[in-house]
Amino acid sequence: MKTFLTLCLSFFLFTSCVDESNKNETKVVETSNNVSEDPLPSWNEGNTKTAIMDYVQDVTNETSENFIPEIDRIATFDNDGNLWSEQPAYFQLFFAIDRVKQLAPDYPEWKNTQPYQSILEDDLNTLMSFGEKGLLEIIMATHSGLSTEAFEKIVKDWLMVAKHPRFNKPYNELIYQPMLELLDYLRANNFKTFIVSGGGIEFMRPWVEDAYGIPKDQVVGSSIATEYDYNNGSPVIKRLPKIDFIDDKAGKPVGINRFIGRKPVFASGNSDGDLQMLQWTDSNRYKSFQLYLHHTDADREWAYDRDSHIGKLDQGLDEAREKGWTVINMKEDWKIIYPFQKSK
Amino acid sequence: MKTFLTLCLSFFLFTSCVDESNKNETKVVETSNNVSEDPLPSWNEGNTKTAIMDYVQDVTNETSENFIPEIDRIATFDNDGNLWSEQPAYFQLFFAIDRVKQLAPDYPEWKNTQPYQSILEDDLNTLMSFGEKGLLEIIMATHSGLSTEAFEKIVKDWLMVAKHPRFNKPYNELIYQPMLELLDYLRANNFKTFIVSGGGIEFMRPWVEDAYGIPKDQVVGSSIATEYDYNNGSPVIKRLPKIDFIDDKAGKPVGINRFIGRKPVFASGNSDGDLQMLQWTDSNRYKSFQLYLHHTDADREWAYDRDSHIGKLDQGLDEAREKGWTVINMKEDWKIIYPFQKSK
Repeated sequence: MKTFLTLCLSFFLFTSCVDESNKNETKVVETSNNVSEDPLPSWNEGNTKTAIMDYVQDVTNETSENFIPEIDRIATFDNDGNLWSEQPAYFQLFFAIDRVKQLAPDYPEWKNTQPYQSILEDDLNTLMSFGEKGLLEIIMATHSGLSTEAFEKIVKDWLMVAKHPRFNKPYNELIYQPMLELLDYLRANNFKTFIVSGGGIEFMRPWVEDAYGIPKDQVVGSSIATEYDYNNGSPVIKRLPKIDFIDDKAGKPVGINRFIGRKPVFASGNSDGDLQMLQWTDSNRYKSFQLYLHHTDADREWAYDRDSHIGKLDQGLDEAREKGWTVINMKEDWKIIYPFQKSK
Repeated sequence: MKTFLTLCLSFFLFTSCVDESNKNETKVVETSNNVSEDPLPSWNEGNTKTAIMDYVQDVTNETSENFIPEIDRIATFDNDGNLWSEQPAYFQLFFAIDRVKQLAPDYPEWKNTQPYQSILEDDLNTLMSFGEKGLLEIIMATHSGLSTEAFEKIVKDWLMVAKHPRFNKPYNELIYQPMLELLDYLRANNFKTFIVSGGGIEFMRPWVEDAYGIPKDQVVGSSIATEYDYNNGSPVIKRLPKIDFIDDKAGKPVGINRFIGRKPVFASGNSDGDLQMLQWTDSNRYKSFQLYLHHTDADREWAYDRDSHIGKLDQGLDEAREKGWTVINMKEDWKIIYPFQKSK
């Protein structure tokens, strides 16, 4: 959520795309049964693919000194910019902005109240001028005040109609095909796969099972406070306008410890916000694997790293080189980016 | 943790039993492969066993209108007094008291400082007189100030040497054989089993995998705050003297929502502290099952309910009767209590 509250709007030139005509939910489920002989067919041959497969073969080989018992095969994946795209802004921010517009008829005062007014006038420069405080207010207004059940439905409904400004596709189609294969490959080798993201946990859970095959209870994320209400025998959990936990940077090892209770052996991220998770994993007594995704493909996706306001990868890139962590060069290592680019 | 901080000491007549002679860790792992033809052999035939088995057979039957998809088969179990005993005091309190005594040489001032002095003098009436505030101070002194890794080792070491005052057995042998069979039976039917306990999450995780076959990431409990420390390249997560979350009463549905993200269909508890979890489960759109364990067996375990200061079951007992939830009568329904009572 913290990354979500940084000045991510500086790349922000888009129109909100809500298209009521497409109500079909996209389901992209890859199960281990579907793994072909090459478990990573969308990965080009090269050092990255070899490093991943060598590691998995080594630590799952009972005769290897690096063998890891199944219970300890914990793999954690960042989400934004790592399992799906995050440009030109975090997709959760598109959701929040669409939600402000959707709620606006019930809040006529927003027309003259900032930061809402700037959103309603598509004046994102002004929105940016309110900084973190303004964005926090928008998150609270759009993500709280309802039950967890109602919020889940709102997220699902949004995914059915909203379209990404560049690709004109539902956001949950902008997931990375090579990463789906990697998740499958790890699970086929009895790794338990988790999402550990700065994004909102209840923004992710409604769709990650279909998208990644990761069950809801294996999703760690930022959260707002909730409370139980017996509600005269129809109990609900209410979402409160208060931040509970920020699962970013040093929050990631804390979230991993809280939710998983075990140090990962495999960690995958794409930004400096993932650095502490990779460091934590790197300190495992078992042989561990640290994977950074470097966005190098402006043609097929985006190219950004040290100077980006979204998914900044600077210190992490240095530390990866220093420590010999594996860095995916998206342009070189990936045959395709998204599932809809698969040849039929 | 809140239950842990109530006046649980009123039944407290014991001597701390640390026996260095027994260093063998007890492992009681039941896997679904071991399930015999009767999946619940330690349960007497009767309404309780029949109700459980009828439910499981119904909701796993694809042709039943009550069929539940596997992903939604979430079963949550309280721990204290539900999977293991909780008398004459919560076992975590025995741990805390033993730890005060262990740490005392490093804190000579404790000899004259309350509430520590009362523990060191085995004067539990005085300890009780400090109420929640005193017990909270003891928890903070004994459960924080070290890394998560060091704390895990301390819990494991304690389980190897500490003995229960009545049974003179390691605490993790005082788990309920019939509940082990129930956990196995549910897992064999593709339920995912979770602990949802007021006890400390990091007090439970070191031993519940061996005891119950429940992995660490499927344990929800009370927690203290933690922080990540890079520690010059040897990162640790430090336990801070601050309560983070109380997973009891209305905290249980909140914890379930936060950690699991899905409403259970099966919930099992033994006290009023579990009532909200059972209510929450009862509101599932799927056919659900609510199970209360009623401690009715003073000879083989303990008998207590409405007037007990530990594991009080009063409102829950009324609501169970009113709503037709299943209530285990320990004395009538269970052939044996603990695994060490199994006939060889």
